[in-house]
Amino acid sequence: MENFEFYNPTKIIFGRNTIKQIGEVINEFGYKKIMLLAGGGSIKKNGVYNKVVKSLRANDIDWIEVWGVRPNPVLSKVREAIEIAKRSNVEALLAVGGGSVIDSAKAICAGVYLDDIWLAFEDKVKIKKALPLFTVLTLSGTASEMNQWAVITNEDGRKKWSIGSSALFPRVSIIDPEVQFTLPWNQTVNGAIDALAHIMENYFLGSVEEASLSICEALMRTIIKMVDKLKKDEKDYNSRANLIWCATMAHNGILGQTLKGGDWSSHRIEHGISALHPEVAHGAGLAIVFPSWIKYMKNYNPDIFKRFAKEVWNEKNIDKAVEKMKMTFKKWGAPSSLRDLGIRREEIKDIAENASKFRILGRLKKLNKKDIEKILTLAY
Amino acid sequence: MENFEFYNPTKIIFGRNTIKQIGEVINEFGYKKIMLLAGGGSIKKNGVYNKVVKSLRANDIDWIEVWGVRPNPVLSKVREAIEIAKRSNVEALLAVGGGSVIDSAKAICAGVYLDDIWLAFEDKVKIKKALPLFTVLTLSGTASEMNQWAVITNEDGRKKWSIGSSALFPRVSIIDPEVQFTLPWNQTVNGAIDALAHIMENYFLGSVEEASLSICEALMRTIIKMVDKLKKDEKDYNSRANLIWCATMAHNGILGQTLKGGDWSSHRIEHGISALHPEVAHGAGLAIVFPSWIKYMKNYNPDIFKRFAKEVWNEKNIDKAVEKMKMTFKKWGAPSSLRDLGIRREEIKDIAENASKFRILGRLKKLNKKDIEKILTLAY
Repeated sequence: MENFEFYNPTKIIFGRNTIKQIGEVINEFGYKKIMLLAGGGSIKKNGVYNKVVKSLRANDIDWIEVWGVRPNPVLSKVREAIEIAKRSNVEALLAVGGGSVIDSAKAICAGVYLDDIWLAFEDKVKIKKALPLFTVLTLSGTASEMNQWAVITNEDGRKKWSIGSSALFPRVSIIDPEVQFTLPWNQTVNGAIDALAHIMENYFLGSVEEASLSICEALMRTIIKMVDKLKKDEKDYNSRANLIWCATMAHNGILGQTLKGGDWSSHRIEHGISALHPEVAHGAGLAIVFPSWIKYMKNYNPDIFKRFAKEVWNEKNIDKAVEKMKMTFKKWGAPSSLRDLGIRREEIKDIAENASKFRILGRLKKLNKKDIEKILTLAY
Repeated sequence: MENFEFYNPTKIIFGRNTIKQIGEVINEFGYKKIMLLAGGGSIKKNGVYNKVVKSLRANDIDWIEVWGVRPNPVLSKVREAIEIAKRSNVEALLAVGGGSVIDSAKAICAGVYLDDIWLAFEDKVKIKKALPLFTVLTLSGTASEMNQWAVITNEDGRKKWSIGSSALFPRVSIIDPEVQFTLPWNQTVNGAIDALAHIMENYFLGSVEEASLSICEALMRTIIKMVDKLKKDEKDYNSRANLIWCATMAHNGILGQTLKGGDWSSHRIEHGISALHPEVAHGAGLAIVFPSWIKYMKNYNPDIFKRFAKEVWNEKNIDKAVEKMKMTFKKWGAPSSLRDLGIRREEIKDIAENASKFRILGRLKKLNKKDIEKILTLAY
């Protein structure tokens, strides 16, 4: 077992009717002027916005609002919000939304202290300081509510890249599962597949890390079980709550840090897809890339792939397990091939080119452009 | 699933040759004068002490030493160290040892800011402030290295009681599994049983918390597997490292917070035993109390006991699972009955009387003195 460090100071407040605590939470930290960052307006429809501002008001917290963060969030929006944050002297950020909003908020929090936030994505400057971040989660999957990472797309160059810093952990994240009752079903599925993918990115690098591997399996089995149950009843609170909590734990560091930091090729390849096709949801892209990656990689760490087949899918054979996984995703309504996403075969080269720009692409095996093309062809 | 909060800011540095980092770690926080707290001297034999002081010296950190914390640590020692800490104006504490040393250190850290630390154990004052704590772990089991709790025995009244406060989380804990290669075998076993017991205290309160229940099972199975492997080779690094990491996760809040805070009757009953018999190791007491508690309680939440039998012991019947558990503990060399601990039947009443002093004794069922006597009789 390799040496590791684990640190995660985010406080989670989880459960029904917890959003109304947000004002008091921020007040306890002493912040009186904040930026509320949000997406396209769904939080106005589902009542979350009203609960948040009522709580801010009750705690005498002044706020400005920045709207319009879109899925696969972009750098231009981040830059716009950084300027507003600087001008308005906000003391903290409150992200109300899913991973896109929270990731953007992290980049904004760091960006107010840097000349150009994109330099941090290019690893040319280090993030040492950031405005404090609070979140109210409305869509689970990325686990951004409890980690130090953010992914943003730079439209110039179509680069979907990431930053990470211990300064970016949210101080407090509020997770009310009932908020996700009204999500479109495909968003629940995409989030669940994203969470599964986070676990798999770590898991397949494993060998002797019995504690972490067995937790990975427990979480994967639970996620699959809970989505199956939600498919029958989207408002089943316990299934929703368990799925959501699994998604948070899937990528809060406790697994990744103990499993050599994970492989992350499938994520990088998917980022190549959604950098070129921003309309593709991250989870939908992963549903297609990951099974193909497993097929392509199954001989590189055969013991772990066999273990995965047995423990998660109750199959002896890895190919059969992958088929079962694909059927499960299909049953949930996820796309099954690049074609389903409306991507043309000719684009495979472009996507592979885009994905191969990452400094590190794969740990179990370092992938080159040819490897990625083969994986994408399997996914076609 | 009930609402919960989770917060744990302790940073873990885990792995081989990590102890030499302690000076740099403390230095990064800016502390220049600390108290080094330790037990009976085993850290001088296994080389840990030398590594620690070499690292402190290399980072220009001044320290005073307080030795003599004993297993089932006592209030008088804590009070003595509080006076020394106040007199010497130390800025932080460094606990080098197992749970007893770390628990004592927590009480000292809080005690320097209170008129009488015992009032906090009696819930008469709240711990709001404490000196910062760093730890180098030498014996796993209590998970005190990554939580906010401490248990101390007040010799006056033979009360083995606990405190908890977010001010008591260690800032950083260093866990080098190789340090535990040279432990007497029974200490490895006691630690493992303590860790199993922490998981069980939470688990048996569960019903719909699928994510947490499945993690509990993963950890319990892993602990059992790892001790079995260590029994064959105590220096098997991976088994030792996995066991140790399970023990930390078993009681760092991530399970307990999601499972209604846990039941903790078996712990309280065991504290009743070791309050009267300080020579009894906590894990050894638990090895005896817990199986009897399960037998006594099995009809109060039958689904979870059945699930435990199946998932952890591969048995349909809970009594058979308990027998298997007892046989496993026996095979590891743990005591099997109160008699094995040298306790006389007449003492059962005294122990029950002592344990029943806790304000809350049991959540799955509130236990009274008669219940405890029955459980202890089963354990005799």
